Amino acid sequence: MLILGVECTASPVSVALCDDGLLVAEYFLNQKITHSQTLLPMCENLLKMSGVSISDIDCFAVTAGPGSFTGVRIGISAVKGLAQGLSKPCVPVSVLEAMAYGFLASECYVCATMDARCNQVYNALFKVSDGVVTRLCEDRALMIDELIPELCDIFENDPERPIFLCGDGAEMLNRVLLSKEIDFVRLAPENIKLQRASGVCAVATALIADGKTVTARELQPFYLRLPQAERELKLKQK
Amino acid sequence: MLILGVECTASPVSVALCDDGLLVAEYFLNQKITHSQTLLPMCENLLKMSGVSISDIDCFAVTAGPGSFTGVRIGISAVKGLAQGLSKPCVPVSVLEAMAYGFLASECYVCATMDARCNQVYNALFKVSDGVVTRLCEDRALMIDELIPELCDIFENDPERPIFLCGDGAEMLNRVLLSKEIDFVRLAPENIKLQRASGVCAVATALIADGKTVTARELQPFYLRLPQAERELKLKQK
Repeated sequence: MLILGVECTASPVSVALCDDGLLVAEYFLNQKITHSQTLLPMCENLLKMSGVSISDIDCFAVTAGPGSFTGVRIGISAVKGLAQGLSKPCVPVSVLEAMAYGFLASECYVCATMDARCNQVYNALFKVSDGVVTRLCEDRALMIDELIPELCDIFENDPERPIFLCGDGAEMLNRVLLSKEIDFVRLAPENIKLQRASGVCAVATALIADGKTVTARELQPFYLRLPQAERELKLKQK
Repeated sequence: MLILGVECTASPVSVALCDDGLLVAEYFLNQKITHSQTLLPMCENLLKMSGVSISDIDCFAVTAGPGSFTGVRIGISAVKGLAQGLSKPCVPVSVLEAMAYGFLASECYVCATMDARCNQVYNALFKVSDGVVTRLCEDRALMIDELIPELCDIFENDPERPIFLCGDGAEMLNRVLLSKEIDFVRLAPENIKLQRASGVCAVATALIADGKTVTARELQPFYLRLPQAERELKLKQK
């Protein structure tokens, strides 16, 4: 089972090729270049270097959210196009869960956090133990001030197990925590700090085993908030 | 400080770009295609996608060994050529140490093992604690039967801390261990199972801070054994 994993929900972009759970190739870029200029050329080069044709792919995995509306749409659109043309199944993956899969060698909590602007973050919490990721809450958009008490609770109940912050909101969240003299969390090391397509493939492998594939037509982004334009329109209409 | 990391000491090949300790880009491929066909095209594509010119690179990091003689020579030769032409410094890195840097989020021992054929492995042992990698022995070539008692000693002295096997010799070593009913080690998760250029950049960042750069002319591979042809010649001359 050859999976192409695609990730571009925020500033980084990555693609990976995974064959029956083994990582064949991964290409990661975090250089603030628009994904419309990077994603498909990176896919093309990765497949070429791997000696794999796009028609060899059995399933397309993509982070369907949460994240930047533009980023999520670029990833979903690219995968919809490829999978529709080849009549292959798709697997939508939570980018927050994909990040947690970077920590499989750790005994820890993972606080995956993306900057959602307006003092909000997209966040989910996970526990990683014995190479198994357990989700502790659904993906949600919440105020940083709402997240902090949850982190304090986790620390109080299990102070020996480190809590790692990852995602593009990790450093901002850490600064807020330090300003409140909360220093029990740790920033993730660089190689697993941000979302990676290898993590997307790892989550997808588990989802495929559970039969959770969809058709290209069924593949949808999942947003946790309305886009800013729609929020402003709703406010005006009140 | 922009570092280009290059790794091709065994079957996988990877290149990474790191800017003041932050990972900008990484390209990893493990597809049994000769590195002479993949390494420089991957470098070229990574730089192009990152919007970085080769002349922007401040320092070239490369895994100088141990590993396959051909692989080590391809990596060293490529970096020698690039660094010599641009008059930039180089940093030779142990590929075994680069692997250990994948585990910075773990509290563990890392047994980095490459298949050296003839029942031998290239190996080094590391302890990772609080985000710090501590080397427990020099890189060496040894028989698997010599390594096993060392792993048993580590486990007996510190049974709570997991021992992860990584490198292309990890699965072979694990099979030998299981055949002897030794099951206290764990195979590394897929994303950090094999050597990655992001780890090369992480080691290089520390070495550069210690002033351990060399000129392109001084850059040398480090071999732990003589090549097979030279070993056979010596035997004949006895």
